Amino acid sequence: MKQIDFYNVSFSGFWKNRQDINRLVTVTAVYDRFSETGRFEALKCRWKEGMPNKPHIFWDSDVAKWIESVAYILRNTPDEKLEAEADAAIDDYCANQWDDGYCNSYFTAVEPEMRFKVRDWHELYCAGHMAEAAVAYFEATGKDKLLKTIEKYMDYINLRFFVEDSAEFSTPGHEEIELALIKLYRCTGKEKYLDMCRRFIEARGTSEKDLKGKRDWVDNYYCQSDKPVRELGEAKGHSVRAMYLYCGMADLALETGDKSLYDACRTLFDSAVNRRMYVTGGIGSASHGEQFGNDYFLPNDTAYSETCASIALALFTRRMSLIEADSAYADAAERAIYNCCLAGVSLKGNSFFYVNPLEINISRFNSYKEYCNRNEHLLTQRAEVFDCSCCPPNLTRFIASIGDFLYSADDSTLYVHQYATSETEYNGIKITQDTRYPLHGDVRITVKGMKGRKIALRIPGWCSFASLDGSQVTDTVKGYVYRDVTGDEQVFDLYLEMKPRLVAANPLVDADCGRVCLCRGPLVYCAESALNGGVLLNTLSIKTPLEAGTEYDESIYGYKITAKCLEDEPFDPLYKDYDGTAKEREITFLPYYAFANNGESDMLVWFRR
Amino acid sequence: MKQIDFYNVSFSGFWKNRQDINRLVTVTAVYDRFSETGRFEALKCRWKEGMPNKPHIFWDSDVAKWIESVAYILRNTPDEKLEAEADAAIDDYCANQWDDGYCNSYFTAVEPEMRFKVRDWHELYCAGHMAEAAVAYFEATGKDKLLKTIEKYMDYINLRFFVEDSAEFSTPGHEEIELALIKLYRCTGKEKYLDMCRRFIEARGTSEKDLKGKRDWVDNYYCQSDKPVRELGEAKGHSVRAMYLYCGMADLALETGDKSLYDACRTLFDSAVNRRMYVTGGIGSASHGEQFGNDYFLPNDTAYSETCASIALALFTRRMSLIEADSAYADAAERAIYNCCLAGVSLKGNSFFYVNPLEINISRFNSYKEYCNRNEHLLTQRAEVFDCSCCPPNLTRFIASIGDFLYSADDSTLYVHQYATSETEYNGIKITQDTRYPLHGDVRITVKGMKGRKIALRIPGWCSFASLDGSQVTDTVKGYVYRDVTGDEQVFDLYLEMKPRLVAANPLVDADCGRVCLCRGPLVYCAESALNGGVLLNTLSIKTPLEAGTEYDESIYGYKITAKCLEDEPFDPLYKDYDGTAKEREITFLPYYAFANNGESDMLVWFRR
Repeated sequence: MKQIDFYNVSFSGFWKNRQDINRLVTVTAVYDRFSETGRFEALKCRWKEGMPNKPHIFWDSDVAKWIESVAYILRNTPDEKLEAEADAAIDDYCANQWDDGYCNSYFTAVEPEMRFKVRDWHELYCAGHMAEAAVAYFEATGKDKLLKTIEKYMDYINLRFFVEDSAEFSTPGHEEIELALIKLYRCTGKEKYLDMCRRFIEARGTSEKDLKGKRDWVDNYYCQSDKPVRELGEAKGHSVRAMYLYCGMADLALETGDKSLYDACRTLFDSAVNRRMYVTGGIGSASHGEQFGNDYFLPNDTAYSETCASIALALFTRRMSLIEADSAYADAAERAIYNCCLAGVSLKGNSFFYVNPLEINISRFNSYKEYCNRNEHLLTQRAEVFDCSCCPPNLTRFIASIGDFLYSADDSTLYVHQYATSETEYNGIKITQDTRYPLHGDVRITVKGMKGRKIALRIPGWCSFASLDGSQVTDTVKGYVYRDVTGDEQVFDLYLEMKPRLVAANPLVDADCGRVCLCRGPLVYCAESALNGGVLLNTLSIKTPLEAGTEYDESIYGYKITAKCLEDEPFDPLYKDYDGTAKEREITFLPYYAFANNGESDMLVWFRR
Repeated sequence: MKQIDFYNVSFSGFWKNRQDINRLVTVTAVYDRFSETGRFEALKCRWKEGMPNKPHIFWDSDVAKWIESVAYILRNTPDEKLEAEADAAIDDYCANQWDDGYCNSYFTAVEPEMRFKVRDWHELYCAGHMAEAAVAYFEATGKDKLLKTIEKYMDYINLRFFVEDSAEFSTPGHEEIELALIKLYRCTGKEKYLDMCRRFIEARGTSEKDLKGKRDWVDNYYCQSDKPVRELGEAKGHSVRAMYLYCGMADLALETGDKSLYDACRTLFDSAVNRRMYVTGGIGSASHGEQFGNDYFLPNDTAYSETCASIALALFTRRMSLIEADSAYADAAERAIYNCCLAGVSLKGNSFFYVNPLEINISRFNSYKEYCNRNEHLLTQRAEVFDCSCCPPNLTRFIASIGDFLYSADDSTLYVHQYATSETEYNGIKITQDTRYPLHGDVRITVKGMKGRKIALRIPGWCSFASLDGSQVTDTVKGYVYRDVTGDEQVFDLYLEMKPRLVAANPLVDADCGRVCLCRGPLVYCAESALNGGVLLNTLSIKTPLEAGTEYDESIYGYKITAKCLEDEPFDPLYKDYDGTAKEREITFLPYYAFANNGESDMLVWFRR
């Protein structure tokens, strides 16, 4: 099936709000921070030893994602200032293309002798992101300067990797170019890009050249090249690299109909989502190396759960949804989007989490740091910029194109994957969603121009009672309910029961044993100590069965939940016989995406039950 | 009051068994391991660069504690082989005394130019331990060779530190010599040793010379010298150093009647025992630097809880008991002795824990190591020897002299601090304890020759119902019940109700929130996964109120407890709505001292409730 692209979708409500903040605040904040840190200046390739703001090997990719974000914004909303800024960046980047086609600011200005020598140095990753930007910018503005530059660069990459085989590695240490080549293929219609994508994917894990990383922990499993891609089996290594590779594999499987590649993707999806994903849709639990841990290793306080990884998971599942209508994909996308991804940016839109923990316990963290020599990451508040600033422009392009997630279609059926109040026009079809989702579970869907075709509505995995046009839904097929469209204009009234509920983790998740997580609809909730009188969060247990009430709060664009908890009674001695005393206390929970917008505080997702 | 020394006490039952293993197995095992690693050979001062078994700065102290152990054994049980081995070690040590009196094998053979230059290099610590050995060996055998050597050495130390002030530091970086000087004073009656002790203690935290450590984390707080001793306030820094200092301070307070010094000791006792001690009596929770953490920072899986620290805590509390009859001291001693200290040695007596964790989760540990770059300590089984092997000979001397903990006396009152089946003769008094303690709580105490005096019996803090001669005890004073002795021979029938019970930690202990610890009498219990069908221990919660049964097990010299638990039902998805399903399961618990005698296994003390 084919995706219905974001630019066909016009939001109001929740996502309109988010996209406005993204457009009016975030994309400019990212531009300003990138300017201050020299990322745009670096494109001019004037940096010399001793000058400030030494460029970094991945800066081209930061700028590329920002250009891509601008392109998505321009597609629906003209903005002269943004367009001029993007044009300038593109001019600077393109001006430094070598005659042979090579185009990378770092390896031109800083280490030209290292071109295509170190597998892990993000060269092809930067090329991939710039290609995504080029396609997006061409499609949004019709300007093809960057696209032509990238096409020439890709021809050079093709020469070095597949004609001459003269690079010192065979496949990228940080994947991304694979999915970008598919975009280039779809935009230009040129088969050579599809072929390059296929070659990069098929060569992976088979080349002697790639058998050794340059840092001791960057070995082949870390870069998903310890085995050929169809044999990987487990979601392992650097989680963003893994997900970008899986995106490319899914794209290739869709384009070529390669069943074995799709099956490999499904196995990797199951590994990531069914055994190695946080309840927030965060992945990559390991605090060292931004990587996946073992099955069920999901520590909460040291969760890495990088924003980019969760975005990449959503991107992967969206691609999988195009191959098979299985709601597992859109369920995972929804979990990631509304929780880990949205938590990555502040409600105001100007600061960012790179790492998204599920527990903040400042006192414990400080004790471990001071007394146990631990140097793990803790950021209790979002930052405006990071040295490694991949996440902010990833969020801006993601939010600007979030409409991509709503629909796909084939000749016979329109698939509704996500619910959001919006109007969409596509190939003569008009689809209107009237809903307060994710705040409420009633969704009125009106379709025009679909007579004689089917509509498939996803019943989310979190929903235990759904009705359609007043009747309980019992006839789902892989999570979708199918209905014939019999009228020129037809209304479907979907109701997804949405009440606060407690979720348990598989008992194999040691970190969550004896604990529950408060959820409502697709949203995971957490509580902050500071909003609850400074209570020590681990002294609380949520009462079961749940006694909870909701309260709308404009400042978080959603509902707070107040739940009855038991708080262990304080006492003086260090130890005493257990007497079960505890006092009831109402605790206010926030959607996870809204935490850390109220000052520094302890925070907890998984509460004792 | 005065302590009734161990050699007046003759055990049967629990401690007879432990002392036999100590004498027949452990002290020889330690000797053999020390021989193999060159510790005895090092005393000959023949080591040269390039030879194996390079001596270490603390090896004199290892041998000293072994000699002290032998002395305590010889006091009650002649043993020609042990005595000959100790004589040989003493001969070697003494043969290398310098003409000026200096006597340390490391600083003679390896780094003679470094004499008294580095505060943290354990020179005075070694002198202290050798002095303890000298006193013990002289009192056990009448042989004064080591005593005379040490006296000459102490005179030299006095010259360098207090006459010339020519050492490069003023007080030891690793305390111990203070309490040893008191022993030397008591043994020889020479006031100069009491005076040296006083000077070392009073100078602490006041000298400019001592303001900087040699390793970056060895600063003054780490060595208890950031403030004068009366102002220390908190139990901080290296836990063994701290406790040995506190021992010396308590000794000095007892000898001099210095109330302010006793008050300072009490404040430090409260800090250590009421806010920084594991339920097992382990102290020094920090995995880095063997040190105390903040109040209530008591992580279970990374607990350091060194055996030596728990022994030192017991030694400190015993000294405090002599100054004031407050059962808090003997309660803490009992907790440490029966749990952390005894866990330090295997039931067979030939292997040792240095670190005593309260949780072993091998899978989690391996995941943190592999994926989070943690390099914290995990030893799941006891080892026969360590590079830093302070704990094994500390255990042998401790167990051989455990009788020290039973009684103290002043002119009017005999204080019974600990219960153990035994016979004791002291200054014309005969005391018989007939009891199966710590297995059962009934204790028949028969005293002869005490007519007209009082007996004070400690009612342990763990005991919620006690009776004496059939009547409930309600008239304790600071934890002791006082009775007049009216007959030439009089029997006291004490009953301490001892049933399995659940203990809670103060809610400020984050690591134990929502958890309980199964205890019976003074014993803390734990469960091993391997003895319970491989169950994941964190999937269990102990049913409250407790449903438990006991079963005697000869192999552990005590009772196993079987308690009803709820085990979370396994399920397939990673997350699902919480439905409260769990199945009942009986779990077998062992006394903490008996864990890790059954092969490698996960282990847990604090269970979910």
